[in-house]
Amino acid sequence: MHKLVARVLSADRFKPFGDVIDGAGLAPDKMINQGLCARFHDLARLDFADGRAGISLFASQAKSAPFLFELVERHPLGSQAFIPVDGVAYLVLVADDDNGVPTGFQAFVAGPGQSVNIHRNTWHGVLTPIDTPGKYVVVDRIGAGDNLEEHWFETPVLVTV
Amino acid sequence: MHKLVARVLSADRFKPFGDVIDGAGLAPDKMINQGLCARFHDLARLDFADGRAGISLFASQAKSAPFLFELVERHPLGSQAFIPVDGVAYLVLVADDDNGVPTGFQAFVAGPGQSVNIHRNTWHGVLTPIDTPGKYVVVDRIGAGDNLEEHWFETPVLVTV
Repeated sequence: MHKLVARVLSADRFKPFGDVIDGAGLAPDKMINQGLCARFHDLARLDFADGRAGISLFASQAKSAPFLFELVERHPLGSQAFIPVDGVAYLVLVADDDNGVPTGFQAFVAGPGQSVNIHRNTWHGVLTPIDTPGKYVVVDRIGAGDNLEEHWFETPVLVTV
Repeated sequence: MHKLVARVLSADRFKPFGDVIDGAGLAPDKMINQGLCARFHDLARLDFADGRAGISLFASQAKSAPFLFELVERHPLGSQAFIPVDGVAYLVLVADDDNGVPTGFQAFVAGPGQSVNIHRNTWHGVLTPIDTPGKYVVVDRIGAGDNLEEHWFETPVLVTV
């Protein structure tokens, strides 16, 4: 069994796979609302081959450590952003691609208030709220056609935190 | 002074002004992730005259009741969605339009986990976290040109909750 230890999520670590939307370490791009509100501008690479951006809501059951992943998936037609709205931390499994085969797995714990945008065609595990069911606002592609590719493992990936 | 009492936010009440993204009363459109996750699909009317959708982060100072609004604003070129990521409730002031002048004010309290998408060109008050500073992921138009119209009141609008 492939074993992996999850690390704390940060923009630097996540860069090969997507964007972290938490404002950490960033200076505001603009102060708005008479100086009362900081705008951190355009933090995610939304990338849709066709269709359009849309906002959906995911309500997912929880999993607990150790986390067993039997598959990863990717979306060839669009990026997918997950925005936690009820403060539930979640596990993010991602991988590089080697000619259609996921390789070089990395796992991260996204804390409450940390959103991620997974880039188009990037292998990732399914949404995994930790210990508590969680709701996530999702910004992804709305459109026709098959936008899901799954890769099932011969040997599962086991992630501890 | 124009006085107003805020009501609890619901999709029905907010319909003339935008979308409420909370899944309340909805059946999932699809079960994904081997039945572990409910997808409530495409809940917001993203509407951009030009440019593109983007994801930004707003970090706003708090206000407390009674809430004094000296202006409302609207964005002629795009809708704007607010997604609370740290569980801070916020006040949403909206208004109808009468030939360029806001009229028929309504105020709502958006609870933790309730996101709103304010429709393009709809008058609204600035982001107003209640009692505690709040962070909000914002999905709005990224593009050049002036997308902000403000209307300052002769008499402020005072909102109680």
